[in-house]
Amino acid sequence: MRLRVRYAECDPFGVAHHSSYVPWLEEGRTELLRTTGVTYAQLEREGVFLVITKLELKYRRPVRYDDLVEIRSHVVGGSRIKIRHTYEVALVERLGAAPDPSDPAIPSDGVCAIASSELACVDQNGRPRALPGWLAS
Amino acid sequence: MRLRVRYAECDPFGVAHHSSYVPWLEEGRTELLRTTGVTYAQLEREGVFLVITKLELKYRRPVRYDDLVEIRSHVVGGSRIKIRHTYEVALVERLGAAPDPSDPAIPSDGVCAIASSELACVDQNGRPRALPGWLAS
Amino acid sequence: MRLRVRYAECDPFGVAHHSSYVPWLEEGRTELLRTTGVTYAQLEREGVFLVITKLELKYRRPVRYDDLVEIRSHVVGGSRIKIRHTYEVALVERLGAAPDPSDPAIPSDGVCAIASSELACVDQNGRPRALPGWLAS
Amino acid sequence: MRLRVRYAECDPFGVAHHSSYVPWLEEGRTELLRTTGVTYAQLEREGVFLVITKLELKYRRPVRYDDLVEIRSHVVGGSRIKIRHTYEVALVERLGAAPDPSDPAIPSDGVCAIASSELACVDQNGRPRALPGWLAS
Repeated sequence: MRLRVRYAECDPFGVAHHSSYVPWLEEGRTELLRTTGVTYAQLEREGVFLVITKLELKYRRPVRYDDLVEIRSHVVGGSRIKIRHTYEVALVERLGAAPDPSDPAIPSDGVCAIASSELACVDQNGRPRALPGWLAS
Repeated sequence: MRLRVRYAECDPFGVAHHSSYVPWLEEGRTELLRTTGVTYAQLEREGVFLVITKLELKYRRPVRYDDLVEIRSHVVGGSRIKIRHTYEVALVERLGAAPDPSDPAIPSDGVCAIASSELACVDQNGRPRALPGWLAS
Repeated sequence: MRLRVRYAECDPFGVAHHSSYVPWLEEGRTELLRTTGVTYAQLEREGVFLVITKLELKYRRPVRYDDLVEIRSHVVGGSRIKIRHTYEVALVERLGAAPDPSDPAIPSDGVCAIASSELACVDQNGRPRALPGWLAS
Repeated sequence: MRLRVRYAECDPFGVAHHSSYVPWLEEGRTELLRTTGVTYAQLEREGVFLVITKLELKYRRPVRYDDLVEIRSHVVGGSRIKIRHTYEVALVERLGAAPDPSDPAIPSDGVCAIASSELACVDQNGRPRALPGWLAS
């Protein structure tokens, strides 16, 4: 999943504000789910809600306005009621070109931030419930 | 209603991003409603939803990170199903002091932006309904 | 320019919050500029900044989480120092399918919101300056 | 530091979106700094920038639209170039009243989320630099 960093997502220091990454991760795991043939919108209509219980982010290098970034999301575990993801936010294009590997402002692997999250499955009233079988690990 | 401009609300040009004003106006009219003794949260629990149908903003001078601004909201009309508001976004403190009246970056009346909005009253399903009598004009 | 409505962009009423449209319009005009072969990021590096002075939105029907919407942006005029745009926010996919033309929740032309904006050209210090010749009308 | 949860900060599940907490934490540590007599805006004007390198959040119970919450921020360590904070997001008012201690939707200590962050000190170009002496631990 790729997205272009919006002007509104950047701050006076000229880089993407650290809060902007959080909706990107959400979009990353949403698109990952879509590849299984089910959308989160469908889950909600069936009374299955996933709420975040834990989130960790490590910011290695800033990304900037108009950068094209790739959000790489992975399911790394979970249980009958929880799902764990990890994420990489990788720079794929800056100023209309592939990132320059000799630029010290960019990590050599292009990964500018890493993150992990834990989601819990709840019903419409916020009470814990089991994940649908095909989602549980 | 006063608020301090958040870092996350500012953009690479160093000023509050123009989208940041929109939640401020919402907070302004919400606090205006609260002064009548009713909160918007209560209205929603009674099945009264106010959705925005029209919004206009004029940006005269930028406000900046850490500025203290005052949102002045007024009901200026409406009907059985609509409410119209106007707003002023006034600078009241910059760099810990009252704004300098000789500073050309600040309008002489301190009003950095003006706005207006139109809200329509709908039920939970988004269908038009009459405003509660005490709210209608 | 198409985008999918993010969960974080929606509100307790279940629809895209009215403030979420504002960054979409910015992204729309940014992508329109890119089609001319110049990016806004390049303009800023050359000391050309475009600041918004006026914004108007009309919300006809709500768009929802996971909707795919198209932002149609047009330059409609301007001057030596100003540019005017109009926009349409059109629904192109809901629940994984083209919008149902018989659904009263969707306008028959699919256009859920319209908007217009006025941008002024300023230098790094916020002082008015002429637009680059190729941008001025 | 107290703030009221904005409508725009809440999501279709009816609670504050998990990304909304991130600017609250930033506002919490900013206000904590202000109590020392220095503002972050002043630091930036002196070429001292604090960028976030690590952020962790644990969400225990949701907070809702119009809740009044208290952001409790603490400096818990650091070094010559880093500062570490912890945070509690505590509910202090819901529906116009103190939270009901028998309500299972609210933790008994009112603390709905906890968080920690690490900031690094950099210069205007993003290069590491020492914290001003009075800020370093």
